[in-house]
Amino acid sequence: MSAAVSEFGLIQQYFASNQPGNLSTSLGIGDDCALLNIPHGYELAITTDTMVEGVHFLPNTDPECLAHKLLAVNLSDLASMGANPIAVTLAITLPVVDRSWLKRFSSGLFALAQQYSVDLIGGDTTSGSLTLTIQALGLVKAGQALRRSGAKVGDLIYVSGCLGDAGLGLKIAQGYQCQESAIPLQRFHKPMPRVETGLALLEIASACIDISDGLSSDLGHILDKSAVGACLDWQKIPLSSSVQDYVKTSSDWLMPLTAGDDYELCFTVAPEKIELIPESCSQIGVIEQQPGLRIKKSGKTEIIEAKGFEHFSK
Amino acid sequence: MSAAVSEFGLIQQYFASNQPGNLSTSLGIGDDCALLNIPHGYELAITTDTMVEGVHFLPNTDPECLAHKLLAVNLSDLASMGANPIAVTLAITLPVVDRSWLKRFSSGLFALAQQYSVDLIGGDTTSGSLTLTIQALGLVKAGQALRRSGAKVGDLIYVSGCLGDAGLGLKIAQGYQCQESAIPLQRFHKPMPRVETGLALLEIASACIDISDGLSSDLGHILDKSAVGACLDWQKIPLSSSVQDYVKTSSDWLMPLTAGDDYELCFTVAPEKIELIPESCSQIGVIEQQPGLRIKKSGKTEIIEAKGFEHFSK
Repeated sequence: MSAAVSEFGLIQQYFASNQPGNLSTSLGIGDDCALLNIPHGYELAITTDTMVEGVHFLPNTDPECLAHKLLAVNLSDLASMGANPIAVTLAITLPVVDRSWLKRFSSGLFALAQQYSVDLIGGDTTSGSLTLTIQALGLVKAGQALRRSGAKVGDLIYVSGCLGDAGLGLKIAQGYQCQESAIPLQRFHKPMPRVETGLALLEIASACIDISDGLSSDLGHILDKSAVGACLDWQKIPLSSSVQDYVKTSSDWLMPLTAGDDYELCFTVAPEKIELIPESCSQIGVIEQQPGLRIKKSGKTEIIEAKGFEHFSK
Repeated sequence: MSAAVSEFGLIQQYFASNQPGNLSTSLGIGDDCALLNIPHGYELAITTDTMVEGVHFLPNTDPECLAHKLLAVNLSDLASMGANPIAVTLAITLPVVDRSWLKRFSSGLFALAQQYSVDLIGGDTTSGSLTLTIQALGLVKAGQALRRSGAKVGDLIYVSGCLGDAGLGLKIAQGYQCQESAIPLQRFHKPMPRVETGLALLEIASACIDISDGLSSDLGHILDKSAVGACLDWQKIPLSSSVQDYVKTSSDWLMPLTAGDDYELCFTVAPEKIELIPESCSQIGVIEQQPGLRIKKSGKTEIIEAKGFEHFSK
């Protein structure tokens, strides 16, 4: 092998040092494939997300945050199906070998991975423009996965946590002045996947999605797949004090409904099951027969267009 | 949703039209995750490979060939473990939306995928420099996967098919003049994964790898992982008539041993099992205790340095 830094050397040095910690991993990095044991009675949930420099993150983004977010957005997809994450692969395309960057990137990746006993089981390292793809694998009991398609007329609509903090964080990162900036910035740079909430919703939620592109866009997917409509209640939308201040100051009340990157879960529940819902979740509306998404605000009902972050559409 | 071409529109239009054809797929494209049923008694084999324009392929490469090769190199990794492919995800980063390119790319992808009943079960479409990542998933009976680490002293070394055709194809693509150019070009542009051979080697081969970076480099991984050495016999290296002509004309006899992209399998077998080996495979050497890779040629034994395609090392 060449004395120069090789593809294999990179993987070995920064990523393969982490030994498997999940019982499902029977073979990790180091062969042509990794091998996973899938327990009998479970299905495997699979998702993949790519982040591209200049599109999904700014040049010179802190590599620890970048790795955290890349993993978090993938785990969030597993969470929205009620799947328990077990393993990921990482495809990383880098313009140059920057050892300090790689060390911090792998540190950010493993910090979050270890919280959920997620193993890095394989990957590919190539040269080119900075492009990062994770594929995440999780387990869910056969037939129990939460889908977008199960919402029924009369179901209540819930979200976990608060909405709009990541959207405010992005504005702060772009120069918006705000008294309490720490939490919004944290939620923008280091979102937490709602894995425990997703697991708690199995056999309770009738439909579920994670809020990556904004509530209106992502709830819109539930409505499309379930062939229903919805009406939200503005008074019930859970907002942090920072986002409340932002909405008061700017009058931009649509921001928490349309900004992406919150990675909370949005889900629907039949009325007879609402007592089983985790306390961290808030009811924000109801599923209706009439197609489209509406919101009650100040005594009026307005129509919300599904908007969110869409590549190639800007 | 915007009237402009959206991420979702792209996926729907060119990739989601293909309905699941593999019994393992319980949910394909269209939700936050795909879902796979893993039969009891099987392990899941996982691999990922990225191809970057300007690094792994030239600008303006035919998109059908590109998709074929991207899928083939991933299926080849599954083949080398003796795994039966079931599904893939595709992460595709594109500089612009070129509908004709997407149509031909998806056509090339599905043509090969359907040969092996492989479903495209998910993906992500982003904007940026042309970068393509496939993750492939396969099934192998628990405990039977072929690994790099099982070669024993005295085992015989085999390869499937012929070596060096893809290397010659690359030279022809770069301007080398050759009488019989069609087969080498085909093998360079559209390699075939040796899935059936991998499956036929379960419980027969003691170690196995696919030849992506060149025989010397990839056999070197078997030797490293198995803590053994090897001696090859030049007379036994299977060469097509085109490669035989190339070696005669150029005296570049190392080319078929070091050129990548053949995607044949290299494997080792205990002497008592050699009668079970498929006829398409050739014995080329023997595993020895002495570390390193040697070759007998014209009455002399030469040492071969492990060389192959290594990113960042050129």
